[in-house]
Amino acid sequence: MMILYDYLFSGNGWKVRRTLRLLDLPHRWQELDLLTGETRAPWFLEKNPVGEIPLLELPDGTCLAESHAILWFLAEGTPWLPDDRRQRAEVLRWMCFEQTHVDGVISRARFRRGFPGVVPTTEADFARWHAQGERALAVLDAHLAERRWLAAERPTIADVAVYAYTHVADEGGFNLAGRPHLQAWFQRVEGLPGHLRIDERPPQGQSA
Amino acid sequence: MMILYDYLFSGNGWKVRRTLRLLDLPHRWQELDLLTGETRAPWFLEKNPVGEIPLLELPDGTCLAESHAILWFLAEGTPWLPDDRRQRAEVLRWMCFEQTHVDGVISRARFRRGFPGVVPTTEADFARWHAQGERALAVLDAHLAERRWLAAERPTIADVAVYAYTHVADEGGFNLAGRPHLQAWFQRVEGLPGHLRIDERPPQGQSA
Repeated sequence: MMILYDYLFSGNGWKVRRTLRLLDLPHRWQELDLLTGETRAPWFLEKNPVGEIPLLELPDGTCLAESHAILWFLAEGTPWLPDDRRQRAEVLRWMCFEQTHVDGVISRARFRRGFPGVVPTTEADFARWHAQGERALAVLDAHLAERRWLAAERPTIADVAVYAYTHVADEGGFNLAGRPHLQAWFQRVEGLPGHLRIDERPPQGQSA
Repeated sequence: MMILYDYLFSGNGWKVRRTLRLLDLPHRWQELDLLTGETRAPWFLEKNPVGEIPLLELPDGTCLAESHAILWFLAEGTPWLPDDRRQRAEVLRWMCFEQTHVDGVISRARFRRGFPGVVPTTEADFARWHAQGERALAVLDAHLAERRWLAAERPTIADVAVYAYTHVADEGGFNLAGRPHLQAWFQRVEGLPGHLRIDERPPQGQSA
């Protein structure tokens, strides 16, 4: 059985939790505490030298790191990742956009606000993130003004990946109120089968 | 014919230049000047609302953004991207690692050193990037101690993507001297057919 090493607050972890549920894939959910250094423990660094969650351990004992690589691996051959090469490129394009402009900016501001003591953060850091993050949200809002889903005519793992941190951008101090197309898309993503809130411990965790 | 919008100093641009050459794909190379705002001109924002190079315009007039999405699109179905789903996941894993830990850190320090007046940068910024970047280089060096190529038994687009900014990490103030496995791998990547230096204007540019 697969094991997902994860941390509940992580939007990158949520991307994998959500995809595992979308695809109805049995797995064990194991939470590690980032804040007490559990992802830096020697046994975990053996599995992922980068010391990051989410990490997916496969039944053969090998491990796959990086949330977007995990999503891609899980979704290939399913309707959540198109067969068409040009469409697949758009899926990856929006996942790459997310990694730099959302995860690298909005997620960072959210984490520093949620756990203010952990990493020293200046007002100038927040100001820079807010400028970059608002630009990213504006790009997404404009893109979604003309289409229902980010990368194809149907929902894909790009929608899962980009939803993760954008829908909680307000927790990082970003303005979602002026983004009607983004908000309508949040509702569409939340209407996909088996919605899982970002702060919702997966049932598997209880039996892990 | 495809058009690559690019900027010579960009390692992300180099990833695409190098892959187009590896695959021997005819295209036109068009350089835009980031520093004078050419990527923020209305005609370019029409093509890429994010205002970033590299951007690949396809023969049908549509545009594909994000260097890793472009590499994936170009390499699918070629020996530079494996058919095996598990191996493909490793390719994407190292490209995702690159985006956060190399492009987001080492490339940034290199740009700020190369163009010191453009973005205000503090010593604390450099100190944080240096700590993160040295960790990333250590992870790569250890990974390459045991294998010839990053993601498979043969070279893939992951090698192209990670080489781009790591081989010029010294320009950002990082220490490559103590990374023998990384350096040996640089030489292997440079031995692939049709090597192109990062500061080498592609021949197509001259006739564009």
